Amino acid sequence: MPDADDALVVFTPSGRRGRFPVGTPVLEAARALGVDIDSVCGGRGLCGRCQVDLCEGRFSKHGVESWPDHLTAKSPTEQAWETRRGPLRDGRRLSCSTQLLGDAVIDVPSSSQVHRQIVRKRAEVLDIELDPIVRLYYVEVQEPDMHVPASDLRRLKDALAYDWNLVELENDIRVVQQLQAALRQGGWGVTVAVYDDRRIIGVWSGFQEQIYGMAVDVGSTTIAAHLCNLQTGVVVASSGRMNPQIRFGEDLMSRVSYIMMNPGGELAMTRSVRDALNELTVELAAEADVHVDAILEATFVGNPIMQSLVFGINPVELGGAPFALATDEAIDGLWATEMDLVIHPSARVYGLPCIAGHVGADTAGMILSETPYLGEELMLLVDVGTNAEIVLGNRHRLLACSSPTGPAFEGAQISGGQRAASGAIERVRIDPLTLEPRYKVIGCEQWSDEAGFEEGVAPYGVTGICGSGIIEVIAEMYLAGIISQDGVVQGGLSSRSGRVVAEGRTFSYVLHRDDSRTLAITQNDIRAIQLAKAALYAGIRLLMEQFGTERVDRIRLAGAFGAHIDVKYAMILGLIPDCDLDYVTSAGNAAGTGARIALLSRKARREIEEVVRRVEKIETATEPRFQEHFVSAMAIPHKSDPFPLLREHVSLPLGVPAEHHARRTSRRRRAPSSLSP
Amino acid sequence: MPDADDALVVFTPSGRRGRFPVGTPVLEAARALGVDIDSVCGGRGLCGRCQVDLCEGRFSKHGVESWPDHLTAKSPTEQAWETRRGPLRDGRRLSCSTQLLGDAVIDVPSSSQVHRQIVRKRAEVLDIELDPIVRLYYVEVQEPDMHVPASDLRRLKDALAYDWNLVELENDIRVVQQLQAALRQGGWGVTVAVYDDRRIIGVWSGFQEQIYGMAVDVGSTTIAAHLCNLQTGVVVASSGRMNPQIRFGEDLMSRVSYIMMNPGGELAMTRSVRDALNELTVELAAEADVHVDAILEATFVGNPIMQSLVFGINPVELGGAPFALATDEAIDGLWATEMDLVIHPSARVYGLPCIAGHVGADTAGMILSETPYLGEELMLLVDVGTNAEIVLGNRHRLLACSSPTGPAFEGAQISGGQRAASGAIERVRIDPLTLEPRYKVIGCEQWSDEAGFEEGVAPYGVTGICGSGIIEVIAEMYLAGIISQDGVVQGGLSSRSGRVVAEGRTFSYVLHRDDSRTLAITQNDIRAIQLAKAALYAGIRLLMEQFGTERVDRIRLAGAFGAHIDVKYAMILGLIPDCDLDYVTSAGNAAGTGARIALLSRKARREIEEVVRRVEKIETATEPRFQEHFVSAMAIPHKSDPFPLLREHVSLPLGVPAEHHARRTSRRRRAPSSLSP
Repeated sequence: MPDADDALVVFTPSGRRGRFPVGTPVLEAARALGVDIDSVCGGRGLCGRCQVDLCEGRFSKHGVESWPDHLTAKSPTEQAWETRRGPLRDGRRLSCSTQLLGDAVIDVPSSSQVHRQIVRKRAEVLDIELDPIVRLYYVEVQEPDMHVPASDLRRLKDALAYDWNLVELENDIRVVQQLQAALRQGGWGVTVAVYDDRRIIGVWSGFQEQIYGMAVDVGSTTIAAHLCNLQTGVVVASSGRMNPQIRFGEDLMSRVSYIMMNPGGELAMTRSVRDALNELTVELAAEADVHVDAILEATFVGNPIMQSLVFGINPVELGGAPFALATDEAIDGLWATEMDLVIHPSARVYGLPCIAGHVGADTAGMILSETPYLGEELMLLVDVGTNAEIVLGNRHRLLACSSPTGPAFEGAQISGGQRAASGAIERVRIDPLTLEPRYKVIGCEQWSDEAGFEEGVAPYGVTGICGSGIIEVIAEMYLAGIISQDGVVQGGLSSRSGRVVAEGRTFSYVLHRDDSRTLAITQNDIRAIQLAKAALYAGIRLLMEQFGTERVDRIRLAGAFGAHIDVKYAMILGLIPDCDLDYVTSAGNAAGTGARIALLSRKARREIEEVVRRVEKIETATEPRFQEHFVSAMAIPHKSDPFPLLREHVSLPLGVPAEHHARRTSRRRRAPSSLSP
Repeated sequence: MPDADDALVVFTPSGRRGRFPVGTPVLEAARALGVDIDSVCGGRGLCGRCQVDLCEGRFSKHGVESWPDHLTAKSPTEQAWETRRGPLRDGRRLSCSTQLLGDAVIDVPSSSQVHRQIVRKRAEVLDIELDPIVRLYYVEVQEPDMHVPASDLRRLKDALAYDWNLVELENDIRVVQQLQAALRQGGWGVTVAVYDDRRIIGVWSGFQEQIYGMAVDVGSTTIAAHLCNLQTGVVVASSGRMNPQIRFGEDLMSRVSYIMMNPGGELAMTRSVRDALNELTVELAAEADVHVDAILEATFVGNPIMQSLVFGINPVELGGAPFALATDEAIDGLWATEMDLVIHPSARVYGLPCIAGHVGADTAGMILSETPYLGEELMLLVDVGTNAEIVLGNRHRLLACSSPTGPAFEGAQISGGQRAASGAIERVRIDPLTLEPRYKVIGCEQWSDEAGFEEGVAPYGVTGICGSGIIEVIAEMYLAGIISQDGVVQGGLSSRSGRVVAEGRTFSYVLHRDDSRTLAITQNDIRAIQLAKAALYAGIRLLMEQFGTERVDRIRLAGAFGAHIDVKYAMILGLIPDCDLDYVTSAGNAAGTGARIALLSRKARREIEEVVRRVEKIETATEPRFQEHFVSAMAIPHKSDPFPLLREHVSLPLGVPAEHHARRTSRRRRAPSSLSP
């Protein structure tokens, strides 16, 4: 062990280094060097967040020999911590309770960094810094003295200024109401929650370990929520439930109509969604074994109507032109009590901003999650629901619109359509020679032509076709020549296959038939999908035209539809424009991810608030070109767009008028479409 | 009429002048010159607040000839306003609707100034500027346009920025919730309430005329409130009621004991005082014919325990040493809903800061009202209640303490004591020769030795002695030699007067006797007053000693006691130190005045917050010198202080030991004390 008065310490990964007197606590040295090490208790050995690793050995790179005896042995404080919390990992030390005795190389693991990274889903996007708006601080407050009559609050603030350099703090009245009891119960040690470095919003006696936040995506159909540890960023519980507003109307417009016809209906809907939120909260908290009072923040995304109802804003203006939003700002710093949420009474709520009357905070969440605004790459984001929200752009320019696709993609308006649940056909292949299908049903591992299928589907039966199944069956019907480019079922094939059957003046394709039901794709079903996909494609083309581009670099499909659909089939059917298939991927619940990012990062909030301000909103309803694009997009995949990149993977039938199609199909059957693996 | 293109306009009283093109509206010219003219409607002829007077004549001082035809004739807008609101005073014009046609001298009456003055009570103190924290602004908002999808809120803020130069405004969520309906009902014209120039807290469709604020003084016994027009500063209604907390305990300490013995009792007390506040609010609003929703602000003062209970803070810590306040900051920007007040749901509440555990926001209000911190004059402020709050100082230094006088001054602990109500003796004179008293009773104009007295008091009888009566009778007993300087009733006089009667081992003085009762001043009564006055005087002397002074320039007595007492008698008895009697005056309800000043002036809030921070708090309970001062102050007027200024008006008996007093009184009777008129 060296006997110098000073010790040289090098911190990794930062590389910061400096000399300190022997006996200096490692945490103090780190702070002096500006090394990022977390601590809630202020170096009192309570929180265990300042853990570091000693790197043993000779480090010629640093000119340092670093050995275990260059640090003090485990202190009683560390031992007490281990008794309470379990043994420290081998080599780990509490940096607050460990002193330098000689030169040392000290590694700060990412779990001990305040500004650790939150991993975004797309690997190519920079991770964001964990920087929640609410943080905990432990302080020991001076006892009151009759001769120095500073109030308890003032002495608390003095301690926060001294220990944590938090100055000019404001505070909620509830903190004053609870402070005196907390100080005395905690033996003058309290943990406070500070909002945005400027306002004390909570106080607990003694040392409070953890606080949590909720990120909520309020969809028309389902409400999904994540409970996150605000100090680690980790999701500790996730859950979802139906949006109970469904009893007021299946889709958005029927809910708005309900309000128009039933004044005060908006209050009932707000109440019902908040009730559901509270049930969900209690459920999440129980799952994570967390008290609801430990939840200090909640963030919300939703389409404009859902977002309005959650925040108690009557959405009727969104039911008709000019679709004026009440606000296109973020809802910032709202008290949870104003929303009757059952979380901590001083918790705050953040609602991401809506962008336009049809483009909501869910789209803002998607943008925040996918960050098209950061790169040069031209990105297309699509979230398909009853309306499709479409965002196109890059760091130079960002466009957004909403397109009225209707509910066909979700299986509504389709004769055999159903929600994606056990018993629903989700995958389909059609043999172009025999026109026989094989398919896969949710809840069963086997395809319909594999052994064990019958047993597999027995519990549910084959009950309908979900959204992804409809896309696939129509695309396969097109590839097999059963429908023309114009979407007409070729009646001539009925002579060749019992699957093609007449139904009045049109024909259907029977996908499945058993004792209890027949699932057929009717001409009406195909028309419904054509209308929906034409609306989606027209919206996308409108944005591309406004942007001045004929191609996009990347397509991200958000939401449940995007997660389940096979993107090849979506492109074959012409839902989305031509693109290298490797760059067409699902974004998962991008809106919900955006809410989670906003929950964990103040910077992200300011970022999305700034970005949405420069999004150019395109109104499809009043844009004459939208109609032209719509008509051209009725054909499969499109009347005129050539889809060269898709054709590298898939042989598409030649575009021919419907009436000539029957003859040509025989030729095509000799050269069947081959799907890339 | 001059035919120049430009007109010269001179505004009085500011003297600002400038040339403007003929046709310029007077309001516009005033604004361009920075002349202070109010307007809520932004020059639309709705609010009528921008009224000005044309000064007719040749003004050689200004070099201007100013004649009626130098202004446009009454416009349809002005005529419409007169139809709605009654005719304008002769010569008055709405400056927004009147244009310059030639040179003019225009007077802006104080009622049209935004920053008009609020008159403080003491003439020598500078008036304060009316500058309420909530102000109304009328704007006409652009209609929504599908092609420019800015939200209603954004267009509102744009209008506020354009018309009123209010930028970067925040807003309550309630504003968003109400905005869309308000805009559409108001034909896109709305009035908003803006808090502290930075946050929209209210919105009304169309033009909203007036908003109000409440200034509340929560005393242990009574709650007093003023309803003020926030735009004129005028008090439109005042009222008071008993503090219903009396059912939990008559005085402060018994209420704190109740809480200590009944956990949760603080919640019941908070609820009861808030209920009373709400009843008072409804009463005030009805009296002024104002809707409670038009009340946008409330300010509160109270002693530390009352202030705590109003704001939902448990006061038990104030019941014992070290008397730690929860907070000594102002309660700023609290939502009225957090206090369950029935005023506008977005109204805000301001509580003046408490100074120390025994020196409350009522004292802060007194300081703000009396402004000792502004002058060189050494001012003593005294508010006598169960505790006396004492403030001493000037612009250089300010000291404060609280002294435990007990309730004797309020008539409690006195055998014949009662509250100041009809039937109570309030004034007393004793003939030093005969020892016969004459007195005045509340509710009766005549003195007891005047004709008509018997008839005058017949409705109530003579039922007791109120605080001011007790002070006077004991002081007169002292002047008449009935009690010694030590406060001992001279039993030897019983042989001379039937009014001096033995009662056990001590003697009493019979002030009044009739069929139903005898009102006598007992030795115990005198002791109780001596203890109370000694505590008060000792507190004052302690502050004087700390300040390093032997005299004060001015004494202001606040509260009901100060308003009713004859200051001469208070000084004869030695409640207050020697001072020129002309400079000893009542300050009225100075605490309540402080609340009203804080209601009407933002600057005053910052001022008192800053001042209380530098008040030096003296703790009488632990100050050894307090006991010494207390013992010396038991004598009448004082054991050693000479009271030279008092002696200029009053001949005081020589200070002699009690046992030798009986002999001397005969001499003194030959030189009776003469009271100045």
